[in-house]
Amino acid sequence: MITGKNYIGQQISAQGNKTFKTFNPLLNAENPWKLTEATAEEVEEACNLATEAYKTYSRTSGVQKAKFLRAIAEEIEALGDMLLEVYQSESGLPNGRARGERKRTLGQLRDFADYVEAGDWVDASIDTAQPERHPIPKVDLRKMNIALGPVVVFGASNFPLAFSTAGGDTAAALAAGCPVIVKSHPMHAATGEMVASAVIKAAQQTSMPNGVFSNLNSSGIEVGQQLVLHPNIKAVGFTGSIKGGRALYDLAAQRKEPIPVFAEMGSINPIVLLPNALHNRAENIAKTYANSITLGTGQFCTNPGLILGVKSDGLTRFINTLAQEIIKVEPTCMLHPNIAGAYEAKKANALEQQGVKVLATYPEEVKPNHARQVVTTVEGETFLNNTTLHHEVFGPFSIVVQCEDETQLETVISKLEGQLTGTIISDENEINTKYNIVAALQNRVGRIIFNGVPTGVEVCPSMQHGGPYPATTDSRFTAVGVNSIKRFVRPFSFQSWPNELLPDELKNENPLGILRTVNGKTTNEPMNQ
Amino acid sequence: MITGKNYIGQQISAQGNKTFKTFNPLLNAENPWKLTEATAEEVEEACNLATEAYKTYSRTSGVQKAKFLRAIAEEIEALGDMLLEVYQSESGLPNGRARGERKRTLGQLRDFADYVEAGDWVDASIDTAQPERHPIPKVDLRKMNIALGPVVVFGASNFPLAFSTAGGDTAAALAAGCPVIVKSHPMHAATGEMVASAVIKAAQQTSMPNGVFSNLNSSGIEVGQQLVLHPNIKAVGFTGSIKGGRALYDLAAQRKEPIPVFAEMGSINPIVLLPNALHNRAENIAKTYANSITLGTGQFCTNPGLILGVKSDGLTRFINTLAQEIIKVEPTCMLHPNIAGAYEAKKANALEQQGVKVLATYPEEVKPNHARQVVTTVEGETFLNNTTLHHEVFGPFSIVVQCEDETQLETVISKLEGQLTGTIISDENEINTKYNIVAALQNRVGRIIFNGVPTGVEVCPSMQHGGPYPATTDSRFTAVGVNSIKRFVRPFSFQSWPNELLPDELKNENPLGILRTVNGKTTNEPMNQ
Repeated sequence: MITGKNYIGQQISAQGNKTFKTFNPLLNAENPWKLTEATAEEVEEACNLATEAYKTYSRTSGVQKAKFLRAIAEEIEALGDMLLEVYQSESGLPNGRARGERKRTLGQLRDFADYVEAGDWVDASIDTAQPERHPIPKVDLRKMNIALGPVVVFGASNFPLAFSTAGGDTAAALAAGCPVIVKSHPMHAATGEMVASAVIKAAQQTSMPNGVFSNLNSSGIEVGQQLVLHPNIKAVGFTGSIKGGRALYDLAAQRKEPIPVFAEMGSINPIVLLPNALHNRAENIAKTYANSITLGTGQFCTNPGLILGVKSDGLTRFINTLAQEIIKVEPTCMLHPNIAGAYEAKKANALEQQGVKVLATYPEEVKPNHARQVVTTVEGETFLNNTTLHHEVFGPFSIVVQCEDETQLETVISKLEGQLTGTIISDENEINTKYNIVAALQNRVGRIIFNGVPTGVEVCPSMQHGGPYPATTDSRFTAVGVNSIKRFVRPFSFQSWPNELLPDELKNENPLGILRTVNGKTTNEPMNQ
Repeated sequence: MITGKNYIGQQISAQGNKTFKTFNPLLNAENPWKLTEATAEEVEEACNLATEAYKTYSRTSGVQKAKFLRAIAEEIEALGDMLLEVYQSESGLPNGRARGERKRTLGQLRDFADYVEAGDWVDASIDTAQPERHPIPKVDLRKMNIALGPVVVFGASNFPLAFSTAGGDTAAALAAGCPVIVKSHPMHAATGEMVASAVIKAAQQTSMPNGVFSNLNSSGIEVGQQLVLHPNIKAVGFTGSIKGGRALYDLAAQRKEPIPVFAEMGSINPIVLLPNALHNRAENIAKTYANSITLGTGQFCTNPGLILGVKSDGLTRFINTLAQEIIKVEPTCMLHPNIAGAYEAKKANALEQQGVKVLATYPEEVKPNHARQVVTTVEGETFLNNTTLHHEVFGPFSIVVQCEDETQLETVISKLEGQLTGTIISDENEINTKYNIVAALQNRVGRIIFNGVPTGVEVCPSMQHGGPYPATTDSRFTAVGVNSIKRFVRPFSFQSWPNELLPDELKNENPLGILRTVNGKTTNEPMNQ
């Protein structure tokens, strides 16, 4: 079932002779499948097919696109347990996580299907003509969102399903009417091929044009670079490291025609512990965070890597409990030896910084590729003076910053880089008096949480998964939820256009019955003509 | 009344010793006012004030922002005829245009006032908690648009009011809740100072924070560079040349924290003449276009610089009539000697290209800084092989491309750079059979026009003024109409946040009565709790 080949549109293709294998971190051994890297010619072909497919796919109705998206979900389900087995063998993640992530992936595809089938998402806006207006007659103008063009999606190492081949970026782009070329993640390329086969089957079943989807293998950077620089490509979605995301952003910005790169990158997701909350329930908070820090071996983009509080008896009790609790958690396996290696290196670098004290580190030896969790602490002043400590250590690592007072706490927050999330742990009314702290935190994040944990990103329309740089390259968009479609569309106006030639979304009769803004009023009624 | 100084927030300031004067192109002489360039310290101070102002201004209610925007409009009106006189002396534009542009500027400010007062624009979205959901409870999430941060606006040479100091970009950013620093256009810096004084008065009257607006003089590029590179600045609006816009885009992309640059740049706005239309009314079309090409001395971003048709008797009659009609138009004054000089140079360069034939050029000598209109023609093949001819000649210049057949016409369209607009001139039902031509044109533009002219950009919500690069740096946004506010906002989510601490837009009671999406339904009702 796994061929190791690329999908150049519907065509299975392996013209190259460079191959690679994925790795099972639990077994600490290579997986059996031999993946063939896409050649420059195959990349070129995928880009040309995507541009050809765009001509029809961008004009495919919401109903048809919904059928396609639902068929993808069905075909992924039809892959059955074998998909989960390959997923686990390429990620080391447990079966429950595999099932949960598959469920989420199917849910995302079906959410987008519902969204484009309903059709309101095009933001249709109509201003009718006023031929009698003086001194200049008003023309008829009608606007809606249209697909941007072929989109390249880079899969994420830590979400082989939900943020990869047919994950959120792909679902959003396909829903928008954009053909997608996936640069498969080399750590889970076999999982990727299986999912790609499901997408291709779904495209054939629902008569989508050849080239609406391609899947390219690559263990290096050349395929990705060629894709981002290709003039046919009009946008890029990426989930991964700051280094990787920034490199793609820079490439795209240097093109003759720059294109948008929406990269969702690193985050340390600061947690602010307010004094009364610490006073009343330091131990409970510590237990909650011992779990959140180690969840999924700390390999979530919303992992709480930074905990901030003002020195107090409560903070001391929090620290002591966190140290006790964190070592009770059984270490788990990381995604890949490279990721385990990077964790060890970044952790070691953080621990070497002056003033950093280890609170607790898992004491026993661990199996290969398993991560020993560590919590550390540092003085507020030390943290402020050393930006190395502001950077993500991807894995089960967190640093507790002990501030002298609330002024220093506010300063620390305001000096942080952009983050996906920020969390306030507060007693009922305590937050009411901390306006400056909340405002400073809001300024650095895309989502703010009251008395919760940042891990666990609910997929729903009101989710903002994005934030100021370097959390993402463009805080004006989200990577999760149906509004993420906005990354891949542009508004388009028709002036004095014949009614019968307008897209259905803009016709007088409103045949789709969608919500539109007509001369300033929101309505799903047809227009009186 | 004109001091020649900068506004660093409310403070009139002229710490530097570098000065410049503006120029009256009609009199071919310098204007009397001496403008003092902003120093690096003044730029720094404006950026710091803007960041401080952002803390409160970003949280100012829509009602209060509306008062501020309306007060700006009133204060600009209160400048009376003197504003028009200074405008004319710095642009050479006629009084009717000055009045029209002022009216448009006031209209934009008041449109944004209405828009933010109504409040629906924040796209409020609420998904309520489901604590009983299995296996994981659903948290309460609420999302709305918030202001991005301090914005820098670069004024346009060709719209001293509507796209400059208190023009569309400034109105959009202020409406969003972003403080604005204007880098005043050096060709109309005195007009700019007058308008800036109106903005500052309005800010004081409506108790807006100091730093919500600054206005900086500069005749060089240093002030603009310093602004775009300043870490406090979070977005840039620009209207002008491709060279200028791209330089700012590149600077912003190279920052440690890249920021969005929305640059509206060059466009040649192709006109496609279909054969039946030419057959039936070549002469009328030519007369209409002789006017559109020369309107405002060809200094509109939507000026029709390219006319495309298939060789036919009709096209020949069109060409002949256009040649006769264009020279009947009395040449008018350009904005500045530099712009007149650039027009002459670019025109000469276009005329030197092999295969370019002049159809007509205004035959008489003209007054200084006045532009002699020119229409030219070229074969389709020649045009395809020479991209120099694809670039804008800013001024009353147009090129008629005579294609061999419809296939070549479609190829020419598909090879064009991105454009603000495209126009189809068609007989009633003729367009129905030209699917490929329309599709190709739609792919290259942001607005498509049926049987009209691209000049005259209606300011209304359904206007898309933007398009694929190089028409703009990001086709996902518009520069005209209230939706242009989206350039300067980002979505923000509150998770499990206490109701009383939420912004009014997201409270259960919906105190503002705005339209919101609550659990998937669009409603302006309060929530049942």
